[in-house]
Amino acid sequence: MNTPDEILQLLKKYNKAVEGEIDVFLKKGKAQKKGGASDMYGMMRYFMGFTDETFTGPKVYGGKRFRSALCLLIADLYGAEKGKKVALKGAASLELFHNFSLIHDDIVDKDPLRRGRPTVWKLWGADYAINTGDAQLILSQQKALEACEVDAKRGVEMSRFLLEKYLEVIEGQHLDFSLTALKIEDPRVNEKSHYEMIGKKTAVLIGAAAVTAGIAAGKSREERDMLWKFGYSLGMAYQLNDDIVSIWGAPEMTGKISFNDLREKKKTLPIIHAFVKLSEKEKKEFGDIYDKEASLDEEDLKKILAYLESTGAHNYARKQVLAYLKRAETAISNLSVSKEGKERLSNLSKLLLVEVKK
Amino acid sequence: MNTPDEILQLLKKYNKAVEGEIDVFLKKGKAQKKGGASDMYGMMRYFMGFTDETFTGPKVYGGKRFRSALCLLIADLYGAEKGKKVALKGAASLELFHNFSLIHDDIVDKDPLRRGRPTVWKLWGADYAINTGDAQLILSQQKALEACEVDAKRGVEMSRFLLEKYLEVIEGQHLDFSLTALKIEDPRVNEKSHYEMIGKKTAVLIGAAAVTAGIAAGKSREERDMLWKFGYSLGMAYQLNDDIVSIWGAPEMTGKISFNDLREKKKTLPIIHAFVKLSEKEKKEFGDIYDKEASLDEEDLKKILAYLESTGAHNYARKQVLAYLKRAETAISNLSVSKEGKERLSNLSKLLLVEVKK
Repeated sequence: MNTPDEILQLLKKYNKAVEGEIDVFLKKGKAQKKGGASDMYGMMRYFMGFTDETFTGPKVYGGKRFRSALCLLIADLYGAEKGKKVALKGAASLELFHNFSLIHDDIVDKDPLRRGRPTVWKLWGADYAINTGDAQLILSQQKALEACEVDAKRGVEMSRFLLEKYLEVIEGQHLDFSLTALKIEDPRVNEKSHYEMIGKKTAVLIGAAAVTAGIAAGKSREERDMLWKFGYSLGMAYQLNDDIVSIWGAPEMTGKISFNDLREKKKTLPIIHAFVKLSEKEKKEFGDIYDKEASLDEEDLKKILAYLESTGAHNYARKQVLAYLKRAETAISNLSVSKEGKERLSNLSKLLLVEVKK
Repeated sequence: MNTPDEILQLLKKYNKAVEGEIDVFLKKGKAQKKGGASDMYGMMRYFMGFTDETFTGPKVYGGKRFRSALCLLIADLYGAEKGKKVALKGAASLELFHNFSLIHDDIVDKDPLRRGRPTVWKLWGADYAINTGDAQLILSQQKALEACEVDAKRGVEMSRFLLEKYLEVIEGQHLDFSLTALKIEDPRVNEKSHYEMIGKKTAVLIGAAAVTAGIAAGKSREERDMLWKFGYSLGMAYQLNDDIVSIWGAPEMTGKISFNDLREKKKTLPIIHAFVKLSEKEKKEFGDIYDKEASLDEEDLKKILAYLESTGAHNYARKQVLAYLKRAETAISNLSVSKEGKERLSNLSKLLLVEVKK
């Protein structure tokens, strides 16, 4: 049950479970059906990949739904029926929340495409996208609270835990805006603030997915702490790896132009590391290139790449990814699940690391 | 305890209670304080009226906080200590939610001012305003769930009830966008769809404020239904009255230019009513004016006002306000509170009707 094919089958099974839970939920909504002027729940179903922009077409690719799959796999490994039922509500909540955050992110980032399809704001305008995202955020809370019908105590605990983590994700986006607005030589742009930002923006939700399964199954504080360490470390490895790929990944792999993150002057770990290592004179030249209004031209690009090379930035970032992966593996080995279960968890986790932004 | 002055004192008391609850809560947040680059919780505190845009100034006017005051007054009338404690969490949640919805509304409507101060998007940009609103929406759920610490069962019931109503408010905004995009002669623009829209957008949250007190106090289904009838009817009367004032109210009263809603070609009840009453020929002329891209000039304005006059639109809308007020009064008379309590509720309600958009 642990070959790559079997892992993909497993992912498919969990996707089916969580999609059923969410699509039935969204279909109940009926904000405005009169004459089909517009349809808020249809917009959500479109973005989740349950239909096309006419709200009548068939299902399409809606993302890997990794967070919910991780939560459901761990609940499966713990085995208890009640825990699995509570976890399904939590998994659906996580997926609704994650996609809500993308709907709003796409407005802010002015991204016209997501998973190869036009984004909500691009199709229907920013007003509808803000509004639809707000509704989906509320639905994600409703879904978590539904778990109270299975077990009131666990339902409340899970809901409060998820709200706390959801808030941290929003804080992470705020941090992202704040840091992006600063110049590369600003002392507030440093490894620590960068780790805090990607931790909140990305790793928290993957950590939350793991812990949700632990709360659902009524596991001890120690077990939950181990689940957090696992999920959070995995999330950090994922984001740091993604940042490496977004600089050095081949365009056919990333779906973006080469050196995309450099052209957009993003201040990810390799950049922050390189800048610290430079002499004062080099820092000045680096800053002159990276802080200017216009995007980088080919000449600028060459210079920045040379600095990344001379400071060993690629290797440094790669080391951090491996360190986080090791932490995640150590946490897995300490979980109270079978040896085969640990293997499966480890194999599912690897699916995240090969995923590349499209 | 029921003179106008005493009622204002009462409002002040409830405002103080709910502001304490919310401000302490917001002060706990620390998304990004490093060097003060920006401050998400500061933006919320600014918008709520707890500080100025430097996040250091004193309290300013932050709205009447009618919804929370209504909830707290009813909880007071029911008297039970536990009910009052649960209601305070619900009241704070309602106020956080209402203000979240205004932060996002201001982006959509491009409003530069709210309560005489620059809006969040105007000061910090739409990106921060979307983000800050999202965080405040999550905080409003957290606040409701805090009631579980007082009484788990009522806390869950109240949270689920509020989420359901919050979702309806978002649906109401969606309906508002959809209806605004249609031409005046579109059959989907009618009294029924207009009532549905303002019901969801405005009346639902005032109904929810009243029912929240009933849930907090553990009241019967019948009592809660009566609270809903009261709050919802009051909310409808408020919105319909507001629409009348926005057409015929004196500029010094509304804080807007005269006939503001007509110039903006809003399709409120007086307009919908007038259009229905017109002959086919008149409908054509009305539509030509009201559906064109440009805003109305003085000549257009005169024609529309003449149509409103000839169809008795002012009087018709006024009648609807009075009918809803009567319903609200009937519901009050059926509540299980003292005669003096009913009077107080009725007097507090009147504060809403004289409120005019600023």
